[in-house]
Amino acid sequence: MPRAEKALIAHIRTLAGKPRRGLVRGIGDDCAVLRPPAGHELVVTTDLMLEGTHFRRDWHPPDSVGYKCLARGLSDIAAMGAEPMAAFLSLGLPRDVRERGVDGFLHGFMRLAKQYGVTLAGGDIAESKGGIVADIMLVGSVPRGKAVLRSGARPGDIIYVTGALGESAAMLEQLMRRGKKAAKDGPASRHFYPDPRLEVGRYLRERKLATSMIDLSDGLSTDLEHICKESECGANIVADLVPMATGVGSRIALDGGEDYELLFTANPSKRIPIEIAGVPVTEIGWITKEKGMKLIEGTRARKLVASGWEHFGQGKSQNLFDADKNDKKKIKKR
Amino acid sequence: MPRAEKALIAHIRTLAGKPRRGLVRGIGDDCAVLRPPAGHELVVTTDLMLEGTHFRRDWHPPDSVGYKCLARGLSDIAAMGAEPMAAFLSLGLPRDVRERGVDGFLHGFMRLAKQYGVTLAGGDIAESKGGIVADIMLVGSVPRGKAVLRSGARPGDIIYVTGALGESAAMLEQLMRRGKKAAKDGPASRHFYPDPRLEVGRYLRERKLATSMIDLSDGLSTDLEHICKESECGANIVADLVPMATGVGSRIALDGGEDYELLFTANPSKRIPIEIAGVPVTEIGWITKEKGMKLIEGTRARKLVASGWEHFGQGKSQNLFDADKNDKKKIKKR
Repeated sequence: MPRAEKALIAHIRTLAGKPRRGLVRGIGDDCAVLRPPAGHELVVTTDLMLEGTHFRRDWHPPDSVGYKCLARGLSDIAAMGAEPMAAFLSLGLPRDVRERGVDGFLHGFMRLAKQYGVTLAGGDIAESKGGIVADIMLVGSVPRGKAVLRSGARPGDIIYVTGALGESAAMLEQLMRRGKKAAKDGPASRHFYPDPRLEVGRYLRERKLATSMIDLSDGLSTDLEHICKESECGANIVADLVPMATGVGSRIALDGGEDYELLFTANPSKRIPIEIAGVPVTEIGWITKEKGMKLIEGTRARKLVASGWEHFGQGKSQNLFDADKNDKKKIKKR
Repeated sequence: MPRAEKALIAHIRTLAGKPRRGLVRGIGDDCAVLRPPAGHELVVTTDLMLEGTHFRRDWHPPDSVGYKCLARGLSDIAAMGAEPMAAFLSLGLPRDVRERGVDGFLHGFMRLAKQYGVTLAGGDIAESKGGIVADIMLVGSVPRGKAVLRSGARPGDIIYVTGALGESAAMLEQLMRRGKKAAKDGPASRHFYPDPRLEVGRYLRERKLATSMIDLSDGLSTDLEHICKESECGANIVADLVPMATGVGSRIALDGGEDYELLFTANPSKRIPIEIAGVPVTEIGWITKEKGMKLIEGTRARKLVASGWEHFGQGKSQNLFDADKNDKKKIKKR
């Protein structure tokens, strides 16, 4: 069982340390108090992580779950070109979670928080009658009017993506096929410890290079559709240009989720470096006036359908819980 | 089953309406963008609500769950003397939740949001493999340096409480004893639709009347201990002065949770009205230099132990799930 609530909060408060970066008051009051830098606006994001939907205790070590919980929020902050300030963590814990597991989660979380100078400023703890619940809320700051939105893409803009796609979804497929053995084979995978692209986001915002930006959480096809929808435009993607992680097929690169890379657009007059802060940046297509997304393969164009992760969707689902059934079938077969 | 994720987000976005009150960008981007009023700081709070721990589907109508979800966060904002600006909602929904249930939840939530001019500015939706998960994050604003903290109580300060205590915990006890029949008998109870004391909090902050403040969520004895701890002092409470809701005993008034009234301290030189914004305000004790809490009954003082709700606590627990066992026993007896 986890520590009693008061003891756990006291423990987290010690881990969180003194308020920094515009945080006037952290854990220990009804609310945290934040003072944004002069001339700055605040950006706010939340990301919910649920056991059985986003992770499984037998596949994902507690350290990875805590790390990813924060990384997901930081990736949203990166996609605005903003600086992270403070994090808030709501934890729902079943009684059968061990203190060691909670400590592992907090270790992964705090390790990433320290790396990016984020203070854990508050949150909530409760007993969960279902699985583990971890909801992250992140507050960042950005100079007034300078946040990079999804809505700024214009026809003719070039579409870029950072890194190589599909490593995370490919690992998930391995986990679904081979169970936790797969996890042992790839502990350093981007699936377990994705690196939020904060430096890239900041670079693009500071130099006013990006007209629109989003982070890849649901999959390239689905997240590109968000940009198209908010910018009221369409997009052409050149299949051969999409950077794929080693051993990953194009379906996973286009539709696989949890890459936590940045997808952005820029006016063709801007020179975009092929590498920013050590991360490769690749041209993969362009924005069109005509709505809808197309995938160009060789000389042929076909419709690109948003086929990434959608909760309660009718299409394919990378449902971690349903994977159980397959696991069981396999065990029986052996 | 709930609507598919995209359709549900589109529905919520319509309900949320246009950004207001310092919200530059609401639902539809990686982050919301907030512009706090000039000379103001931001206050931030999160509150996690889990099925089986904080509510039960058979006891609490969806409208009440949505309403309470926001009310809990607003109550924290009230306790800082702040103005609410924007809300963020993370929802984890099991597949067996009906669209009607989700709509009921959103109806209760939006009704309270509109009452206090709060914009729903973002959040997250995911499928839950356990029960319903609703995490609320609220951002408010307060003039720089003016937030009323828990840490400002000084020896000799008078302790005040708003409203009458115990109605919510008494209803919970009825629910545990009699099941959902009890809910039908008291649908307007503060247990189902608590009114956050935002006007009272603002009144006290504007006139600099309160030295410290907290909202009563875990129970008077536990929440008073938070003030004592953060202010490094003790407290004496006069049992006969504690305002109790009709038909409520002193144990429930002192230890029962979810009152969402305000507990605050003021220098004895300040004149505190006996009613603020239509809510009664009652003197119930005073702050002492000596640490520890005492309950004065007649001419005798005994130790007051923090005995309110604590998750994973060793003491009594108002665990809604465990109540099932009692319910079943009773059904067998009949």
